[in-house]
Amino acid sequence: MRVALLAHEKFPDRAKTAVGVLRYADHDVVAVLDRENDGTTVADHLGGVQDAPIVASMSDVDESVDALIVGIAPIGGGFDESWRPDVRNALERGCDVISGLHYFLESDSEFRNLAEENGCELWDVRKPSEDLGVADGVADQVDADVILTVGTDCSVGKMTATQEFLRAAEARGEDAAFVPTGQTGIMIEGWGNPVDRVVSDFTAGAVEDMILERGNDHDYLFVEGQASITHPAYSAVTCGILHGSMADSLVLCHEAGRETVHGYSQDISPISTYVDLYEGLTAPGAGGEVVAGCLNTSGIDADADAWDALGAYSDELGGPAVDPVRFDAHDALEVLL
Amino acid sequence: MRVALLAHEKFPDRAKTAVGVLRYADHDVVAVLDRENDGTTVADHLGGVQDAPIVASMSDVDESVDALIVGIAPIGGGFDESWRPDVRNALERGCDVISGLHYFLESDSEFRNLAEENGCELWDVRKPSEDLGVADGVADQVDADVILTVGTDCSVGKMTATQEFLRAAEARGEDAAFVPTGQTGIMIEGWGNPVDRVVSDFTAGAVEDMILERGNDHDYLFVEGQASITHPAYSAVTCGILHGSMADSLVLCHEAGRETVHGYSQDISPISTYVDLYEGLTAPGAGGEVVAGCLNTSGIDADADAWDALGAYSDELGGPAVDPVRFDAHDALEVLL
Repeated sequence: MRVALLAHEKFPDRAKTAVGVLRYADHDVVAVLDRENDGTTVADHLGGVQDAPIVASMSDVDESVDALIVGIAPIGGGFDESWRPDVRNALERGCDVISGLHYFLESDSEFRNLAEENGCELWDVRKPSEDLGVADGVADQVDADVILTVGTDCSVGKMTATQEFLRAAEARGEDAAFVPTGQTGIMIEGWGNPVDRVVSDFTAGAVEDMILERGNDHDYLFVEGQASITHPAYSAVTCGILHGSMADSLVLCHEAGRETVHGYSQDISPISTYVDLYEGLTAPGAGGEVVAGCLNTSGIDADADAWDALGAYSDELGGPAVDPVRFDAHDALEVLL
Repeated sequence: MRVALLAHEKFPDRAKTAVGVLRYADHDVVAVLDRENDGTTVADHLGGVQDAPIVASMSDVDESVDALIVGIAPIGGGFDESWRPDVRNALERGCDVISGLHYFLESDSEFRNLAEENGCELWDVRKPSEDLGVADGVADQVDADVILTVGTDCSVGKMTATQEFLRAAEARGEDAAFVPTGQTGIMIEGWGNPVDRVVSDFTAGAVEDMILERGNDHDYLFVEGQASITHPAYSAVTCGILHGSMADSLVLCHEAGRETVHGYSQDISPISTYVDLYEGLTAPGAGGEVVAGCLNTSGIDADADAWDALGAYSDELGGPAVDPVRFDAHDALEVLL
C-alpha cells in the first residue's frame, strides 16, 4: 500500500503513530505532510527507516496514493480544522483516509459524502467492532505460543518491543504474527481491536477474539500490551489483556530511569513487585510467567552505561533483559521461542 | 417514589433486580408484574421485604405510580416484545420507565414518542454518562473513609453485602452512603455509573468521579465491587474499580462452597491468593487492605454449619468474617468503622 502520513508541526518527536508506521508497517510511504518541515526529507530527522519527502500539504503529493494516514494524536484526540484541506484532497482523488482520532471521520458529513462520491473508505481505527462480547476463557486453546508484553507504566515501549520481537523471530525463520491492541499497532498491521476504547466488560473478549482469529495460523503470536497493572487510570485495560490473551509467556517492559508513573504522583514499584503481580494474576488461569525483560535505554547516552542498566534489570527480573532497538532481541528470544 | 416492578415469569428467583429493589430501595412498591404469579403477593414468595400484590399487567395497577422498573435481565439483555403493552401503558399514564437492559428504551421510537407526549422520562441505567474521562488518581483526597467490596467471583453477593453494611452503619448512627457500580445498585440508589458498560480507559475514572461527587458529604462510602480480579472475562472491571476507588479498606466477599468460577473451567483459588492480589495491587497507590470478609452462606441449611463456615473463612482471611443477610454485620463493622 502506498501511503501519505499527516504529521503537521509534530514530525518526528510528537508523531508517534507516523514514526511507528515508517518504522514497522509494510507500506510504501510516498510523503509525510508537515508544513513546518516542508522541503526536508524523513532522513533529515530520523535514522533507520525508509526515506520520503516532507511536504506542506496533500496537494503537493503528485504520486498516486492509496491511503492518507493521520499520524498524530493531539491531546484530547480532536480533529484540527487546519487538516481539512488535506483530508478533502485525499478523498477527492479517491484515496482512503485512516485515522486514530477520538473524533470519528465517519461522523463528519463532508468527509462521509466525499468518500461515498469518490468510492473510497474512511477507517476510524479507534472505533471498536460492533460484535464484541465477553471472553470465554479459551484463548489458550490455539496452537500458537502466545507472548504478551506487559509494563511498569504507559509509554515505556511495549508496542515497539513487540514489533522488534516479531521481526527478530521472523529473521530466524519463525512463523509469527502481531496482535494489535492500540491505534499505532492497528495502523501498522491493518487490523486489530482498540482495546482501550472497548466496553470494560468486553476488554478480555476483544483480545481473545483476535487470538482465536490468528492463533492457529502461526507458531507464535506477539500480543501488544498496554499500560501497567498498577496504573491509577488504565490498569483495567492491562488486566483485561492479561486475562483475555491467556499468554504462555510475559515480557516485562520498563524504561531505564523512570521513577514515577507518567503524569501521576505514584512511584514506580520495585521490578519484583510487577513480576509477582503479573504472575499472581495469571496463575489461577493460563499461568504465564515473566520470562524476559525489555528495557528502553533511549535516555542513556553511552552504550556501556546502557549495558550496565540491562545487567541490573536482568538481575532484578531473574531473567534475560534486552533493548531490541538499541542492541538486539537475541537473549530474550532464546527463552521465548 | 411509588413504583411497579416488571418481573414476568421470573419472580423472585430469577428477578435479581426486582428483589434488590424490594429489599433495599427507598421506594414504595405498589405492584409486581408477573403473569405467572398473578393473584399472589410478594410475601407468598419472599420474606423480610415489603409486601405488594402481584398482577398480570400494568393495566391491572389502579394506583398512581411514579415509575415502572424493568426488574429482570434476560440473557443477552434484549427487550421482550411481550412487555411492550406494560411499558406503553406506563408511559401513557405519565409514569417514568427505568430499565437496565442492554437494549436502550430511548432508542425505541414508540417509547421515545410516548415519553415525550406524556411528559415522562425513559432512564436506561446501563447507558454510561457522556462526560466520563480518565482517572486522575485523586479519590483518596475525599474526607470519607472508602470501603470497597471485592470478590472471589461474580454473583457471590457483593451488592447485597455492600447494602447490608450501609444499613448496619446507618443503624449505628453513622453518616454513610452507597456508591453504585452496577444496574441493580443504580436502580436502588437512583444514581451511579454502570462501570461494566464504560469504555475500558474510563473504568477507574467512572468510579473516581462518583467518589469525588459524594466523598465530602459523608463519613463513610461503601463502594459496590464487581466480579473478581482473576475472572477470565470481567477482571478489567474489578481492577478499574479497585484503582479508581483508592479504597481505605477492602471486604472480601465469597460464597460458601463455591469451588469453580461460575460458567468457566477455572478453580476458585485459596482465599489467601485473593487477599495477596488485591493488597498487592493497591499497595503502590492507596494501599487499602482486606480487613474483613463476607461469606454468603445461603447454600448451607443449618445455622450451626453456617457458623462453622464463617469461622473457617475468618481463619483463612486472618480477619473477622460475617454473613450480614443470615446473621449480622457486627464483627466486620467493628474493624471497618
